[in-house]
This record gives sequence, C-alpha cells and structure tokens, in this order.
Amino acid sequence: MANSRFEYVKDFEQPDVLLPNTWIVVRIDGRGFHKLSDHYAFIKPNDRRALDLMNAAAVEVMKDLPDLCIAYGVSDEFSFVFHPTCQLFERRNAKLVTTIVSTFTAYYIHLWSTYFPSTPLQPPYLPSFDGRAVIYPTARILRDYMSWRQVDCHINNLYNTTFWTMVQQGGLTNTDAEQELKGTVSADKNEILFKRFGINYNNELEIYKKGSVLYRQDEDDYAQSEPKQSRSQQEKLKKLRRKAQVVVDHVDIIRDEFWERRPWILSGKPGKLPTTDSNDQKEAEK
Amino acid sequence: MANSRFEYVKDFEQPDVLLPNTWIVVRIDGRGFHKLSDHYAFIKPNDRRALDLMNAAAVEVMKDLPDLCIAYGVSDEFSFVFHPTCQLFERRNAKLVTTIVSTFTAYYIHLWSTYFPSTPLQPPYLPSFDGRAVIYPTARILRDYMSWRQVDCHINNLYNTTFWTMVQQGGLTNTDAEQELKGTVSADKNEILFKRFGINYNNELEIYKKGSVLYRQDEDDYAQSEPKQSRSQQEKLKKLRRKAQVVVDHVDIIRDEFWERRPWILSGKPGKLPTTDSNDQKEAEK
Amino acid sequence: MANSRFEYVKDFEQPDVLLPNTWIVVRIDGRGFHKLSDHYAFIKPNDRRALDLMNAAAVEVMKDLPDLCIAYGVSDEFSFVFHPTCQLFERRNAKLVTTIVSTFTAYYIHLWSTYFPSTPLQPPYLPSFDGRAVIYPTARILRDYMSWRQVDCHINNLYNTTFWTMVQQGGLTNTDAEQELKGTVSADKNEILFKRFGINYNNELEIYKKGSVLYRQDEDDYAQSEPKQSRSQQEKLKKLRRKAQVVVDHVDIIRDEFWERRPWILSGKPGKLPTTDSNDQKEAEK
Amino acid sequence: MANSRFEYVKDFEQPDVLLPNTWIVVRIDGRGFHKLSDHYAFIKPNDRRALDLMNAAAVEVMKDLPDLCIAYGVSDEFSFVFHPTCQLFERRNAKLVTTIVSTFTAYYIHLWSTYFPSTPLQPPYLPSFDGRAVIYPTARILRDYMSWRQVDCHINNLYNTTFWTMVQQGGLTNTDAEQELKGTVSADKNEILFKRFGINYNNELEIYKKGSVLYRQDEDDYAQSEPKQSRSQQEKLKKLRRKAQVVVDHVDIIRDEFWERRPWILSGKPGKLPTTDSNDQKEAEK
Repeated sequence: MANSRFEYVKDFEQPDVLLPNTWIVVRIDGRGFHKLSDHYAFIKPNDRRALDLMNAAAVEVMKDLPDLCIAYGVSDEFSFVFHPTCQLFERRNAKLVTTIVSTFTAYYIHLWSTYFPSTPLQPPYLPSFDGRAVIYPTARILRDYMSWRQVDCHINNLYNTTFWTMVQQGGLTNTDAEQELKGTVSADKNEILFKRFGINYNNELEIYKKGSVLYRQDEDDYAQSEPKQSRSQQEKLKKLRRKAQVVVDHVDIIRDEFWERRPWILSGKPGKLPTTDSNDQKEAEK
Repeated sequence: MANSRFEYVKDFEQPDVLLPNTWIVVRIDGRGFHKLSDHYAFIKPNDRRALDLMNAAAVEVMKDLPDLCIAYGVSDEFSFVFHPTCQLFERRNAKLVTTIVSTFTAYYIHLWSTYFPSTPLQPPYLPSFDGRAVIYPTARILRDYMSWRQVDCHINNLYNTTFWTMVQQGGLTNTDAEQELKGTVSADKNEILFKRFGINYNNELEIYKKGSVLYRQDEDDYAQSEPKQSRSQQEKLKKLRRKAQVVVDHVDIIRDEFWERRPWILSGKPGKLPTTDSNDQKEAEK
Repeated sequence: MANSRFEYVKDFEQPDVLLPNTWIVVRIDGRGFHKLSDHYAFIKPNDRRALDLMNAAAVEVMKDLPDLCIAYGVSDEFSFVFHPTCQLFERRNAKLVTTIVSTFTAYYIHLWSTYFPSTPLQPPYLPSFDGRAVIYPTARILRDYMSWRQVDCHINNLYNTTFWTMVQQGGLTNTDAEQELKGTVSADKNEILFKRFGINYNNELEIYKKGSVLYRQDEDDYAQSEPKQSRSQQEKLKKLRRKAQVVVDHVDIIRDEFWERRPWILSGKPGKLPTTDSNDQKEAEK
Repeated sequence: MANSRFEYVKDFEQPDVLLPNTWIVVRIDGRGFHKLSDHYAFIKPNDRRALDLMNAAAVEVMKDLPDLCIAYGVSDEFSFVFHPTCQLFERRNAKLVTTIVSTFTAYYIHLWSTYFPSTPLQPPYLPSFDGRAVIYPTARILRDYMSWRQVDCHINNLYNTTFWTMVQQGGLTNTDAEQELKGTVSADKNEILFKRFGINYNNELEIYKKGSVLYRQDEDDYAQSEPKQSRSQQEKLKKLRRKAQVVVDHVDIIRDEFWERRPWILSGKPGKLPTTDSNDQKEAEK
C-alpha cells in the first residue's frame, strides 16, 4: 500500500532555516510561573532551590547540545546561544528551539524532586516553558543582547528585593509597597534598603544580582583551527566541547573583561581558562 | 538604571504569525527514540505502555489547550490540530509549537513512572521531543494530512508486525527478516503472517493498526454561533471545550464517516456525540 | 578559474515559496502618483487617459502571464490574481511580484505616449510602481479581498467626485471643500452633487464608479479536466488561456452574479462566456 | 458606506521586514534576455550600447534611492546594496525590491531610444527584470558577494570572448566552438585567443572584463557622525548622498584596495575621493 496519494501534504511544510553566519539565541520562559510559584510556595524575592533547578536543567541542555557556546539565566528564563558557525539541524529554527525547550523541560521535571524534595509536582500544575529563536548578525550585538538580559536581572532584582523587604520585614501591604516604589530610581531603593532595614544591596548573593552564566571550560589549549574547518575538524571540536566542563558563574557579562578572558566563547573554539583568576571569578566562588 | 541602551536588540525579534484562517498542525516527534526504546527495553513491535503514556500526555495537552480540536498519535509522534479560527497566542508559530512540545514533555516525564513503574528514568536518557507547525488552507487538505499519518501508521505497523514475528517467533536474524521483506507488498506480508505464523493481521489491536485519535465530546448541543463570533461567544465556546471530555479512539479517520458523525471537529464548534454508534466506534470499544 | 571560494554567499538566499493551494494576489501601487499626477496635469477627479493606460498595461501583464485568472484596477493600483493551482516560478514570492511589477512598468512607460501624446515623460518624473504578494486560503476570502478594493473604489470616487465638483464648479477652495465634507456619509455627498450641481452620481461612468476588472474569455467550452492535472493537460490549459481574449469590464464584483456567470475564473479552467448577457455586462458596454 | 466588513482581508498581509543591521543586496536580472538580445540583434559577445543602457538606468536608481551605497552590474544583471543602517521603507523586503525593479525598468525603457536610436522597442518584446533581496550579516561577506559577481563576470567574459572570436573570426560553428572549449581552463582560452587570433585578452575593455561598479563620490569631508545618528543627522547624510555624484567605474573590487581607498562605501558615511589616484582608477579613465 503506497502512501503517495496523501504525500502531497508534505509540500505545505515551509523551510525555516536561520540566516547563516549569525548568532542564534534561543530564549525560553516559564509559562505562568507567577501562579506556579504561588502554588508551590516559592520563597520571595528569590528561591534559591528554583534557581538552582533552572541552572541544573540548563547545564544538561548545554551538555546535550555541544554546539551551544554560552547560556544566561535569570528568574524563570534562560537564553542559549549558538555560534555563527553552528550547523546543528541545518540551522532549522523549529528544530533548534523545540529541542532546547523539550530537553530543558524534561530535566526540570525530572530534577524537581531533587531540589524540592518535600513538594511533589501536582498536575495540572506542571512547569512548562515556551521559547523562540532570534538571530544577531555580530558579536557586538550578541553581547548587547546578553547585557540587556543582565541589566534586566539587576533592575528586577533590586526592585523585588526592596519590595519584599518592605513587605516581609517592614510589614507593608503589597499595594503600599508598590505605591511607595513607584517612580523611584536605583539610588532610592538602595537607600530604603540601607536606611530602613540596614541592608547593603551589594552584599546580596551574586546569583541574585547577576543571574547565572554558563559556559564551557576546556582542559586543552586553544585549537589552531582555520576559519573554514573541515568536517573532521568540526567533529574534533564537537568532541572537545562535549567533554568540556560546563561552568555556572555569577559574574558581570556587560563589561569586556568577562569576554576577553574567555576568548573561546565568542571565537567558537575550545580553550582553557587562563591561569590567573579575575576578581569576578573569585566572587563567583564564594 | 534604565535599560534603554541595550533594548534595541528587541528589534531583531522577527514576527512569526501564521496565516489567518488556516488549519495549524503541530507535529511532535520523539528525539532519538530508537536508542531510547532500546535503553528502556520497549517491547517490539509495539509497547502498549509507551503508547498509553504518549496518549496520556497528549490528553493533558488537549486539556491544557482548549483551542485544539483534534490530535492523532502513532508510535513516538503526535499531531495536534488548531482550527482556522484559533487566535491562541495571536497564532505565533514559536509560541504555539513550544507550548505544545513543553507541555507534552512535562507530562511524559511526570507520568513515566505510572506507565513504567519498574523502569526509572536514567539521565542522560531522558525522553524529549521536537516539533514544528504546518498550516493547511482547507479542511480537505487537513483531512489528507490526517490520512497521510494514518496510512503511514498502517504501513509501518504491518511491516513491523511481520518483521518482529519473523524474528521473535520465526527465529530469523534481523538481517534475514529485513532481506526477505524487501520488495514485498501488503498482501505478501499478510500471507507471511497467516501462512507461517497463523496470525490474522486484522485481529491485531486497533491501537496498533489505526493509531490514536483524540477529540472532545461535549454534553451540550451544537452552539448556533455566527461565523464572526464576538469575544464573549468565543470565551463561552472555550469554556465548553475546556469541560468537554477528551476521547481517545482508535478508528479509521480516512473515510468520511468519522468526520460526518462528529461535525463539531471540523466546524470548530462544540457538539455532542450522535446517539447511534458507528461500526468503527464499536471496534474502538473492543 | 573556479568561483568556488565565493560561492558560499549563495547560501544566504532564503526560500520564499508561497504556501501551496492558496490564492496569490499581487497588488501594485503607483509610487508618488500624487506628485506625479500634478506634474503631468492629470484631470481631476478622474483622468480617463491615465486609467486607460493603467488598463492597457494590465492587459499586457495578463497576456504575458497566462497563469493570472483575474485582475482589478482602480486609480493607480492594480491587483493581479493567481489561482491556487498556479505553479509559475514554483510560486516564489519575489519572482512573481517583481515580474508583474517590471512588466507592468515596462508597458506603462512604453505606452505612455499613446495615451498622453502631447505630454512627454520627463525624468526624474518617471512613473514607477511598488508591489507585494498576499495569499488567501479560500475563494470566499479572495472574493472579500476583491470586494474590499471595489468598495474602496466607490468610497474614494464618490468623495473625489463631490470634492472636485465643489472646487471646480462650486468655486470652493480645497480647504473649504474638505472641511464641508468632513463627517459626511454617502447620502450627504449624493445630495450635494444632485441639489447643488444637478449631478446624479449614478450617471457617472462605470469605469470611475466600479473600477476595472480584467479576465479571460475563451472561445472554447469548459475543459473537463480532473482536479489533478497532468503536465500535458496543464500545458494545454495554459495554451488556451494564452489565446483567450482579455476582457476589460467595469461591473459589480461584490455580488455573486459576476462570479456565477463566469465560473472559469474561480475554477481556474478556461471557459466561454454564457450566451445571454447580464445587466452589468450591458452597462459595461455603454 | 463603511468598508469594515471586508477590511479583515488586510490581516493576511504578512510582515517582511529584513533583519536589522545587515547588508541588503537587491539583485535584478533581465527576463528572457537571451531571446531579447537575439530579437534586437545585440552585438556578441558584448554590446556596448546595452551595457551603457544598463549603467544609465542603474545610475538613475542610485540617484532616486540615496540609501544605496554601491551597485555592481554585469551583462543583464545588477546588484544594488543598502547599508546595514538603512531604514528605507522600514526595511520591508517587497517594498525595497519592487521599487528598485520598477525604477530600473522605467529608466531602461525610457532611455532605450537614446542607446538604440535605430532599433525601436517592439511589444511583446519589451525588456523586463525580476529581482530579489538577500541579506548579509557582515561587510566581509558582502565583499565576498561582490567578488562572486565579479569573478563570474570574468569567467563568463573570457568564455564568451573566446567562443565568439572562434565563431566570428575563426569561422567555427557554434557547436564546434562549444565542443572545443569544453573542459578548457582560463590559460587555454587565453592561448586560443592569442595564438590563433593575436588577441591579448588583457587588452579587452575594462567594462567587459571587470563589469561596472557604481558608487557616490562626495565633495564634502567625512562626516564625523556618531554610530547612533539622530534623525536630523540622518536627514543631513541623506541630503549629502543625494547631491553626491554617482561614479561608474570598471575596476577590481575583489582586492582590498578599492574598499580601502573609498572607506565611505562600507562605513555608510559620505566622503570625498582621496587626492592621489590608484592604478585601477586610471584604468577606469581610459
């Protein structure tokens, strides 16, 4: 029995290959996590278990897809970055995005009980994520994208930290705290925290203030590879990336230092960490 | 601290709204399920537990997204269908696809232990799915799409049933069975099954031969709604769909009968099942 | 000397095939025709020469592209319609649109002196057109598109006729006429024309009130062709369409009558005009 | 009379904005120019009048669209390049492509009689062009695109020159010449020309060997403009570009020299030509 009579329906599948030689960012977001975090009583403003679970799932995605060169997470969102030379799934948009979304979801659900041992998942309150791909033509713009997310992390965390301190320690209602914070700038919030509650925002955990950046750290030296790599070279690089350790860091990715010290991230080539550690490195190790 | 300096990166997000008034099919596929089914020792040619798990996850997707009007599953793939009038997520491609993929994955992982109680999931062998959306301009072509998948189910199941019977009961090696089946047509395979092993393919389970079709069955009468529905009418319909029962059926969806007896599926309006059952209905109840 | 080193740049060309089995409308618009019509002193509100030139160019486009089944023009815009079965240029968007835009422009420029014998073209005031393709999934929606353009024609023509009569015959300034027409409905404009200037709008030329509809009229009977046509049948149909006469009509295309009497337009098959003429046909012949 | 009932058809128009910060190349090609050049008896292998007409039309396109920063033409094709900062028509694909195709066609038809005074255009043999846009993420890749076209020009021109010399001067039939050239490399063709016909290919006209490159040459100094230009600065730049002279050159654009000496082309800023001329400049002036 042939299937030819109906096979014409395949012609309706439209190509969705992403422009070559561009950075691919797949950003995923928790669906309805506001309601979900209430249901599972996430700690406000930051639930360390929830963030660690996000990072653990993201690390598995990085390990599953060696083509990924960096990822950045904050709150219930994560951005995964493919290098311009990436040819995974022939750069098909839907394939790249759904693979990341599904792999992330699978690990998030599977690892849930590790991070929330006394809070079992209760359908229909199952966490899930949506996602999308965006392409960026240059490394400069990719870095601006990463900076955009980290600035957002800072703005939101400063607001949330102040808001929840006013509510939890100051006894304000949500509405009153919201009202008082309306129109304030960073300096105002820092002052509220310090003057009223003796909290120095700078002493908050780096993971809350900076979010989480994931990348590979190789044991091997920089590969001296040509721009046009042969297939066997690409396979070799893939292998190196696969066995590289995925690091979870909480550091500034806006300034140049982070990128200059880890040139293999933007170059798309494997490389090992320079021997002397930067300050933000040390902070990350606290 | 304003985020405006970096916010221009949002301009790189490109719209992906699907053409209005077309059927949207989101088909998801298991990633690397060949290896996975080996790892978890799925029964060949069909593992009833695995199919029931697929269907259970798909039912939850249908319940989570009342806009879905029908779904069809076979092996490790599932096709979910949105009606041309669907406005969910403003018909954004990535949003629709990733929501389905993620929700399906979440339930598949979460429900795994129910269907495989003695086979715990072992990372990195976590099941995951990729997916894509395809649009079809008319109900006729949508039905041809559904027929295409069901014919594929039949072709594959007849092949797999014959192949594994030759191996498991006939003692052939995989290579020998493959070799012997090369070039055979349906009638040949039916004959091998019957003459050599006394198996009448027609007596195989409907779920294996026909796959699984999921749709809603409402208690209420057809809504007499205008083609241009007001928002409140749409909300009412959504509510009706939400409380409708999701049926899992294993019936012929190629011939007209299935569709004619359940006109609400193609009309996109809620409706209750006619009182007299068709033959394929009865088959499904065996 | 091989060109292989640079040929990778071809990979950046992205596919733009239009969804199969949908109606393709290519609408072109005059660029800066407001300024242009001033420069060449087009008669207001309607310059018959300019409309005839538009129609003449459109007829040549129809003759050049036998796949086109109907076209509709008003003012400095024209909509060209390809049937859902059209396979021209593999339905590549840019190819279809630019071919129509360029062919139309070529004839418009070339035929200019025929319609404006005493007004030579003066660079940089050369007429040019932009265009775009839109796809519609059903004949019903295509007809609504055509109706949309014809209603627009009516609305604009009634306004322009009233406005220019008030200016040209009534001696009002542009601003005063504009001011007085603000907020008026059709009945008001009809009354202004009739009471103040003795003009019955119904007696205006059909080409101004209805725009221009172009289609083929075949000498041969309807082809009894199967929905799935063989290549040779398609070639035969193309030939028939090529030798068919392109008719320029000024009739109502909103009501069913036009379409019911010319079933070959929506069916995509050639056909000859029924023997008895409808009223709108006769109007067209005035 | 409102038009609202049909206006929903506008929802079917899909956005086609090109990715920001990328180079946009619109390449147009003559439709059926093989037949056309026979019909109008173009001189083989190169008809200087036809090339000059192409260039004249392209110059007008450059003048009409000051956003264009460079163009390259060979045979019956022309590539027009917009800078990554270009915001013309909000970077809408169809708008950019059709505007260029239509403007080019208009001038080509209008100027025909200037370049072919004794060969009037004869419908249906009217020249027309199709076109498409391709985006390139970096200046390096854009240059590789330009190199690709110029290498193609060289390959084709060497072949055509040899082929037509063998036919016109050597008395070979087309088939015999084609047969003899099969499998030859550049050196072979150079030798045939030189040994058999005493022709030194290097002495052929630059316009035939190198094609035509069009760019602006400003009288003013480089503008010291910020990367993020205000609207008024952009307007000022546009004005400068508008009054700049469009140069038609026949020079090597593969090596760095061309680009290094005219930095304003890739920078997207206006600039005047350096005082000392390069060799390829002088060649161009022959």
